[in-house]
Amino acid sequence: MKLLRIGATGEEIPAVLGEGGRIFALAELTGDIHGAFLATGGTDRAAAALAAGQLPEVDAAGLRIGAPVARPGKLVCVGLNYRDHAAETGAVVPERPVVFMKDPATVVGPYDQVLIPRGSVKTDWEVELAVVIGREARYLASPDEAAAHIAGYTISNDVSEREFQLEYSSQWDLGKSCETFNPMGPWLVTPDEVADPQALGLRLAVNGETRQAGDTKNMIFEVGYLVWYLSQYMVLRPGDVINTGTPAGVALGLPGTPYLRAGDTVELSIDGLGTQRQTFINA
Amino acid sequence: MKLLRIGATGEEIPAVLGEGGRIFALAELTGDIHGAFLATGGTDRAAAALAAGQLPEVDAAGLRIGAPVARPGKLVCVGLNYRDHAAETGAVVPERPVVFMKDPATVVGPYDQVLIPRGSVKTDWEVELAVVIGREARYLASPDEAAAHIAGYTISNDVSEREFQLEYSSQWDLGKSCETFNPMGPWLVTPDEVADPQALGLRLAVNGETRQAGDTKNMIFEVGYLVWYLSQYMVLRPGDVINTGTPAGVALGLPGTPYLRAGDTVELSIDGLGTQRQTFINA
Repeated sequence: MKLLRIGATGEEIPAVLGEGGRIFALAELTGDIHGAFLATGGTDRAAAALAAGQLPEVDAAGLRIGAPVARPGKLVCVGLNYRDHAAETGAVVPERPVVFMKDPATVVGPYDQVLIPRGSVKTDWEVELAVVIGREARYLASPDEAAAHIAGYTISNDVSEREFQLEYSSQWDLGKSCETFNPMGPWLVTPDEVADPQALGLRLAVNGETRQAGDTKNMIFEVGYLVWYLSQYMVLRPGDVINTGTPAGVALGLPGTPYLRAGDTVELSIDGLGTQRQTFINA
Repeated sequence: MKLLRIGATGEEIPAVLGEGGRIFALAELTGDIHGAFLATGGTDRAAAALAAGQLPEVDAAGLRIGAPVARPGKLVCVGLNYRDHAAETGAVVPERPVVFMKDPATVVGPYDQVLIPRGSVKTDWEVELAVVIGREARYLASPDEAAAHIAGYTISNDVSEREFQLEYSSQWDLGKSCETFNPMGPWLVTPDEVADPQALGLRLAVNGETRQAGDTKNMIFEVGYLVWYLSQYMVLRPGDVINTGTPAGVALGLPGTPYLRAGDTVELSIDGLGTQRQTFINA
């Protein structure tokens, strides 16, 4: 099933994507797609109601698509999690996941404009498989237990300002937390529609030129391992989101490739998870 | 004015501290002490209602004190922001604030138990002046503008697991985001009761032995500068919290001083902001 949220920023209504691209409202089942909905079997109820023809169709023509989950309690990121990306940035392959965080309020819709921060000259892109938590994960016994805690998958553009991230201090969060820096969506795709999260192609193009073309099979730490690992150190709660890292092809790793400037358009896609497209403008 | 939240975890009600330690309920004014309350003049309304004798008194005997603001949208921290602490940890004095983040769900009440993570051998303490944002701050023109965006001050214990923070990767957030790792409170003290936030003594004792005895006058980057600086890179929203760094005296900087173990009690205070006390137990 593909869940989504449609409408103006802050006024999104929950919906589900049906056959032929038809969109059905979930308003009678839930006020939003958030942690409480995901933790209480909401996706199962939505699937049952959709199958039973109980959901009213929405005329979504012209409506904005928001991020597919309400603002997460936290937005955890894993850095340098593809061998090719670690190599291109000159980093050694890490022995443990490199964990950092973004301001959860950076999450915007998959087609929203992204703001280049004032003074920025190194605004960069990162296509990532995002994992949405559906059930609290706390000290999981093994990576095998992770699947039961995952509500689904979506796409994140983990937009990064490299000067703020890497040159201002040792800690990366400053360059990851700028306004609008995490387009997410278009859909929350439930695990039954993602046969193998470690066999998904990821692509990103800037102004139509391919910059990233990776595959989740090249992750250093796989999704189940990451959920298990993180659960040893923090509590993952329903609605929390994990950005699982980006493959090679970011501007930071491509000498001579320009960073993003106002007017640039970035298009991202992951197999089975849809497509995003953002135009960058100056803040 | 001193705002607080009382009651069981997740069921706190908003209140205000009156003369003689009497506590008055704010339930008729607001459902909680959160960003929307702070951003819409809530503290002024609470002060007026208190002065007019319009608030019902609460018998708070035996009631738990929660964190003084509802779960923040983000919990931003500044590292190495006291000259003596930077020196004790072997770090150079930073040229810019070192900015990182904690899971906002780590916030607990000022007298709650704190969990030592499984496998931890380096759980450490950090008394910090915490700044609560009251009005959105985005590209402030100068540090002089910061005061208008501050709702008040409280105490954070920025509990830190040094092995997770410093030895597992280059990024600190993992060792800062463990469950219960940010006791906050007891009160949100409005700026009119804090004559000079850069002239506050901070103290922390472990099992009655003083470990930290600092003064906010020794901050490298002062409160107004921090709010201004952060606003250049991220949007600070009402209810967000900034931990402004800790003075010298943490276990990391005191060779031979044991890290925290189950049964240890930590007591923290800052001039005019009250006292916290936590017992540490194993997770």
